[in-house]
Amino acid sequence: MKAVLLNGFGGPEVLHIAETETPTPGPGEVLVRVRASSLNRADLLQRMGHYPPPKGESDILGLEMAGEVAQLGEGVSSVQVGDRVCALLPGGGYAQYVTVPAGMLIKLPPKLTFAQGAAIPEAFLTAYLNLFVLGQLSPEETVLVHAGASGVGTSAIQLIRLAGARSIVTAGSEVKLERCISLGASAGWNYHEGSFVPFVEEQTDGQGVDIIMDFIGGPYYHDNIASLAVDGRLLIIGTMGGAAVENVNLGTLLGRRIQVIGTALRSRSLATKIELTAAFQAFAGEALASGAIAPVIDSVFDWREVAQAHEYMASNKNIGKIVLNVGE
Amino acid sequence: MKAVLLNGFGGPEVLHIAETETPTPGPGEVLVRVRASSLNRADLLQRMGHYPPPKGESDILGLEMAGEVAQLGEGVSSVQVGDRVCALLPGGGYAQYVTVPAGMLIKLPPKLTFAQGAAIPEAFLTAYLNLFVLGQLSPEETVLVHAGASGVGTSAIQLIRLAGARSIVTAGSEVKLERCISLGASAGWNYHEGSFVPFVEEQTDGQGVDIIMDFIGGPYYHDNIASLAVDGRLLIIGTMGGAAVENVNLGTLLGRRIQVIGTALRSRSLATKIELTAAFQAFAGEALASGAIAPVIDSVFDWREVAQAHEYMASNKNIGKIVLNVGE
Repeated sequence: MKAVLLNGFGGPEVLHIAETETPTPGPGEVLVRVRASSLNRADLLQRMGHYPPPKGESDILGLEMAGEVAQLGEGVSSVQVGDRVCALLPGGGYAQYVTVPAGMLIKLPPKLTFAQGAAIPEAFLTAYLNLFVLGQLSPEETVLVHAGASGVGTSAIQLIRLAGARSIVTAGSEVKLERCISLGASAGWNYHEGSFVPFVEEQTDGQGVDIIMDFIGGPYYHDNIASLAVDGRLLIIGTMGGAAVENVNLGTLLGRRIQVIGTALRSRSLATKIELTAAFQAFAGEALASGAIAPVIDSVFDWREVAQAHEYMASNKNIGKIVLNVGE
Repeated sequence: MKAVLLNGFGGPEVLHIAETETPTPGPGEVLVRVRASSLNRADLLQRMGHYPPPKGESDILGLEMAGEVAQLGEGVSSVQVGDRVCALLPGGGYAQYVTVPAGMLIKLPPKLTFAQGAAIPEAFLTAYLNLFVLGQLSPEETVLVHAGASGVGTSAIQLIRLAGARSIVTAGSEVKLERCISLGASAGWNYHEGSFVPFVEEQTDGQGVDIIMDFIGGPYYHDNIASLAVDGRLLIIGTMGGAAVENVNLGTLLGRRIQVIGTALRSRSLATKIELTAAFQAFAGEALASGAIAPVIDSVFDWREVAQAHEYMASNKNIGKIVLNVGE
């Protein structure tokens, strides 16, 4: 098969399409002919050599894909050859074929394209894990979603709406904020205009928010803590702005019963991911099939343009997911 | 009625017994004739003026008590006059009478004395809340209990044993460590001998513990984080050593999916406390009735010696709870 491989680690120029061995599905796995994959920040880090894949997993980039079941491994009866599916992957999505444990497959509703399918798993499962499994979101609560226009952000806004709860967001442009509001956010703050603390205070009548989804880390820590209500939960999903924090006051955590939760999806066990995939489908499967919620796609690149797609992601201009069509 | 009142805020000398108004049970409440109360660290802080009672609550000290139901408020049918009970209180335990919402009452098993009953609520409910509600302890997990010989510590060790899980502890003397081990801890570390990090490493084959119950705060933060396994939970129950921490690395929280949870019992809503009391009784009621678990009492003071009892608690020598017998 063909796949996107790396000429060493480095900039987008190391990415190229070449021949490599087609994987074989083991017991309980299926082989999928990949039709689309999509980009994640982790792909850029992995390309630069900063984020090695978990031990024993494919070193091909790509944490999610959509395609057609091409071959069943031993003991698989939950899907058939030809079924349209999408799935979260530990790697290997930028390729014509990938093997996937059957429990990880999400059947693609007929209305959705492969490009849309490839935009679902990482963003929606990350949002679901954080909001519902770790964050225990209740309908009367308010969530502050940083990077609201990102793949995870746009998914989170929609899942929060589906749960009957309220979201407010931050993003870096008015266009991004408008898109967040059209998806269901009730208000937005452009971080170029300064700290979000007064915005949160105003939006919550001084009570603070119940959950914060944060990708920035260190530079946002103190403003995040200041923006949390009693029993608030700060979900640290990324540390794009740096990881160090000085002057932490544990008494504040105790006094307001705050939880600071470090969270990651990729490193979790297969059993946990299968359970998460099932819980997500139970919660959102119908809404995805009916179109009540949908992945937000910024742009679709042919996989021969994978280097340009990586450059574009690094430029921070996308609203929603950047997808690769995986061709012949 | 008589109660322990304060002559202003200050040292143990401000404590004295004097006449004050007997409270009246409102709808859904009962009046209890208190036979024993017990001491908590918060009492010392409140006596010094550093920990005011929640708004609207009694300003008499005492966060728990055991006694006999003396009068039923409107609509109460779950207990009868004369029933032996114990309960967590928002305050008011150092007194001959206190009113308690009926849902907060724990019926005292026949084998247990009032002194034992007064030693149950705060220690066991705090341990239960942290281990099971917030910490989500599983049977295959290991908990590091700091201050293992404290009221909460000795309760935690027993609840962990009852859940089929494993505890290791720290304490400040060999006598305390031996007591912890007799209650079910599998190993102990005397903190006068240095950092507990190598001890935890050795006890967990380098994997770290799944839950830490911490009362020290700032000075223990980095060693606590270093001692946690993947998916570990650090429960910040107190900050007795100070609240400030420098050099926090959020990347570590993310990489090991660590949760830092600020936790307090007193400030929670009545509804939450009633739910917690019911859950605790469902989990541990039989074990308490049979004697499989029991509150650990260090010493019992007559309430006329309340000042000496406070001094004794401040000296950090107790193993288990310090109880006040509330007399005529």
